[in-house]
Amino acid sequence: MTGTAPILKTHPDDNVSIVLVEGGLKVGAELDDGTKLVDNVPFGHKVALTDIPEGGSVLRYGTVIGIAKEPLARGAWVNEHRIHLPEPPSLDALPAPAAPAPAAPALDGHTFDGYRNVDGSVGTKNLLAITTSVQCVAGVVDHVVRRIRDELLPRYPNVDGVVGLNHSYGCGVAIAAPDAKVPIRTLQNLARNPNFGGEVMVIGLGCEKLRPERLLPEGATGDDATTLFLQDLQFTGFAAMVDGILRQAEGHLERLDRRRREPCPASDLVVGVQCGGSDAFSGLTANPVVGYAADLIVAAGGTVLFSEVTEVRDAVHLLTPRAADAEVAAALAREMAWYDAYLGRGGADRSANTTPGNKAGGLSGIVEKALGSVVKSGTSPIVDVLGPGERVRRKGLNFAATPAGDFVCGTLQLAAGMNLHVFTTGRGTPYNLAECPTLKVATNSALAGRWHDLMDLDAGQIASGGATIEECGSELFRLILETASGRRQTAADRLGIFNDLTLFNPAPVT
Amino acid sequence: MTGTAPILKTHPDDNVSIVLVEGGLKVGAELDDGTKLVDNVPFGHKVALTDIPEGGSVLRYGTVIGIAKEPLARGAWVNEHRIHLPEPPSLDALPAPAAPAPAAPALDGHTFDGYRNVDGSVGTKNLLAITTSVQCVAGVVDHVVRRIRDELLPRYPNVDGVVGLNHSYGCGVAIAAPDAKVPIRTLQNLARNPNFGGEVMVIGLGCEKLRPERLLPEGATGDDATTLFLQDLQFTGFAAMVDGILRQAEGHLERLDRRRREPCPASDLVVGVQCGGSDAFSGLTANPVVGYAADLIVAAGGTVLFSEVTEVRDAVHLLTPRAADAEVAAALAREMAWYDAYLGRGGADRSANTTPGNKAGGLSGIVEKALGSVVKSGTSPIVDVLGPGERVRRKGLNFAATPAGDFVCGTLQLAAGMNLHVFTTGRGTPYNLAECPTLKVATNSALAGRWHDLMDLDAGQIASGGATIEECGSELFRLILETASGRRQTAADRLGIFNDLTLFNPAPVT
Ligand SMILES: [Ca+2]
Ligand SMILES: [Ca+2]
Ligand SMILES: [Ca+2]
Ligand SMILES: [Ca+2]
Ligand SMILES: [Ca+2]
Repeated sequence: MTGTAPILKTHPDDNVSIVLVEGGLKVGAELDDGTKLVDNVPFGHKVALTDIPEGGSVLRYGTVIGIAKEPLARGAWVNEHRIHLPEPPSLDALPAPAAPAPAAPALDGHTFDGYRNVDGSVGTKNLLAITTSVQCVAGVVDHVVRRIRDELLPRYPNVDGVVGLNHSYGCGVAIAAPDAKVPIRTLQNLARNPNFGGEVMVIGLGCEKLRPERLLPEGATGDDATTLFLQDLQFTGFAAMVDGILRQAEGHLERLDRRRREPCPASDLVVGVQCGGSDAFSGLTANPVVGYAADLIVAAGGTVLFSEVTEVRDAVHLLTPRAADAEVAAALAREMAWYDAYLGRGGADRSANTTPGNKAGGLSGIVEKALGSVVKSGTSPIVDVLGPGERVRRKGLNFAATPAGDFVCGTLQLAAGMNLHVFTTGRGTPYNLAECPTLKVATNSALAGRWHDLMDLDAGQIASGGATIEECGSELFRLILETASGRRQTAADRLGIFNDLTLFNPAPVT
Repeated sequence: MTGTAPILKTHPDDNVSIVLVEGGLKVGAELDDGTKLVDNVPFGHKVALTDIPEGGSVLRYGTVIGIAKEPLARGAWVNEHRIHLPEPPSLDALPAPAAPAPAAPALDGHTFDGYRNVDGSVGTKNLLAITTSVQCVAGVVDHVVRRIRDELLPRYPNVDGVVGLNHSYGCGVAIAAPDAKVPIRTLQNLARNPNFGGEVMVIGLGCEKLRPERLLPEGATGDDATTLFLQDLQFTGFAAMVDGILRQAEGHLERLDRRRREPCPASDLVVGVQCGGSDAFSGLTANPVVGYAADLIVAAGGTVLFSEVTEVRDAVHLLTPRAADAEVAAALAREMAWYDAYLGRGGADRSANTTPGNKAGGLSGIVEKALGSVVKSGTSPIVDVLGPGERVRRKGLNFAATPAGDFVCGTLQLAAGMNLHVFTTGRGTPYNLAECPTLKVATNSALAGRWHDLMDLDAGQIASGGATIEECGSELFRLILETASGRRQTAADRLGIFNDLTLFNPAPVT
């Protein structure tokens, strides 16, 4: 190539840039600041902009993302083999909440067409969910879901679909272990997701540890919350069981079918944000776009859930100042400490988070990944912290503590009450949830082009100068409202590909 | 009722009997030995046949199953509220292997029609399995499985079906944690199950922690072991990915379609036995029947896997004498100790195993349940112990260490190389595996009658005197050979209900 190549600092203090030229840069290539490459450096990977001595800090996002294991000359490739991770921030000495930033000007007049529920929540789909209290019944539930779809749904045109909330919990588990509360409350709260319209239909076996009644809302009495056991003595043979379930389903379908969308303020959105298959662009393009949209949602009075404990751990000192009060800051530290201990019991730590794909994409470790990940949270004050599987209590920006694994995180955000999911990806993933719309944002245009029918938005335009974060973020906000209204299908919904829920069970199985 | 009610001791030392009269017995009812009931005692539950003082031992199977919390009068209902559990057998002082019982007379001439594989194993079905290296791809795999079933299978009439080996592992997990070896080797060995004909087709994403190559057999080079990544740059759009997978599937299907069943000796059977939804009859009817059939299979030179660590823990002192040598005995103790520690880390112990259904069915704790559970292993010497997810190495009776949860145990037995599954149940479960035939044996005739199309054999006839253990056991052996030959479908296969695999991951998720 001729001429010099652009550099991209995320903060004035950075002493590395990522390579923005597709195909990467070769030894001898020159950057805009005069740096001459002394290594070949792949696309998206980091190059040192100054000489960094052994033991010196590698700075990105203005923060130490690694310590040089060896002298790194100006122009050298800075990768995970040449640095080691700094210690994570001490949880005992986190910065106190600062006076919350002046609330962004309240954003009025944005609405979407949703299904208003009795409990005040709003659905973005109108689904019959069949909840299960135990793994054994999954084969039967799959069977009835097919039957309902083929035989009953045509008679209930206002119902958007039927989903079986199958999972691997309920029996063969240590149900009295301290951490069992996590999967149990997750299942309880999943059944209450706004997209299920307040109808709760639980299929159990009859002898399982997790009693089906525990999945009903507290004080449930009406026909809208029913349980059925396959071991019920009234059922002689499989056909009788299936008929029993189909009859029960019809009651729920009749009520769901009478529902209609109505205009709802954007403050009824509960948007869960997540990243998966991240690369070095995630923190520069897609995640800032999501952060911008998150700020708009919060300004409109809505709720945003950000998650992924191991991707927050190394940036938690940047988040406690944004806590709405000392209690929220303490809760943030508590969730980090719980996860540190959970990983430690299994002989792991937060560095187990990064993947080969992350590294191939230019991320040199969990600190760099975390700094790019928390950008999704935008700039709003953090009003509450939810333990894994807890249901949202306050509107505004929430930290919903979850593992970073995509399905586990998505499942827990559904339990928290998410009615729309935004997912950013650099490497690409066909991930989709059947329970709520999942919008996918590509971090780079190469992926967005190749997976044209699997991605909903190309944030890669930002790196190429084709759009600004503000433009892309506003477009994402618009897509969220359109999708929540059912006027626009997500790419993955159009293709009809869905993943199973995956429960987080930190307790033992028996 | 008039007259006296029958009693049933499992051992001359027993000081309790279970109630054999359907509907149970009322206060004042008299048993054959002159015991008069002082409590109402439900069907299948225990009644004291002698006065048992506070602190006295409750004996069943000639073994202490509990310590009386309060004085238990002759004729009293003995249930889990009135006893506490004895300490589990110390793992440091287990009895040494005794001279192995004289091998049962070798059983010759029994064959089944199976699919012989290159590695010597034999399939009982001829399935195309699509293995996955990561949870993300499950939605795409479900899609291609449907397409293959609808569009390709009609052209390959000798292929029995296509299964997607979806799971929740592969990314978002602590892949370097010490216990990660369990799920990883489980996935590796699942792909090699005899029912998949040596064809291994791995779908990956491309950036996951579990590299798809790790699921290929060692040294795999031929077309029979293929990997495909959705992130492959050659795929532009979803349709291209799907086409790529379907093309790859055709190569595997062509080879599978050329295979034919051939007569194979019963020594090629690898039968995994399991119980789930147990009641007080499990140890008297269905499990002894399975034990009898297990002895026949071993006598014929075949392989039997028994499992469920928490149901072996309290009976392990009865098993070490049956170990083929000191190494096997030590391995048994080692697997028990590993599980004790695993449960302990999560704040649980082996008592977490029992379910409300077990208790309603008359089982008063894990000791009683364990004593009834290990009966499934028959009387043969134990020739080897497999860690969770390990593949079988020796013919004969193996202890395959697994959790007791039905799907987790079944999944691990499939990884061990099981080609037929036998499952006993007292409460009833619609559980079924798509990967190998699953024969279900009812412990009582009430269940067998009510679930007439879900059960394959009624062992309840034994309690009513309608058949002996030997007769039922021989019948089960015959059913196993018929089913393994594809001449008989299992009840659950006829109904077409299947459960998902459930991996055992004792390591943390990230
Ligand atoms: Ca992430
Ligand atoms: Ca994630
Ligand atoms: Ca069992
Ligand atoms: Ca079991
Ligand atoms: Ca499934």
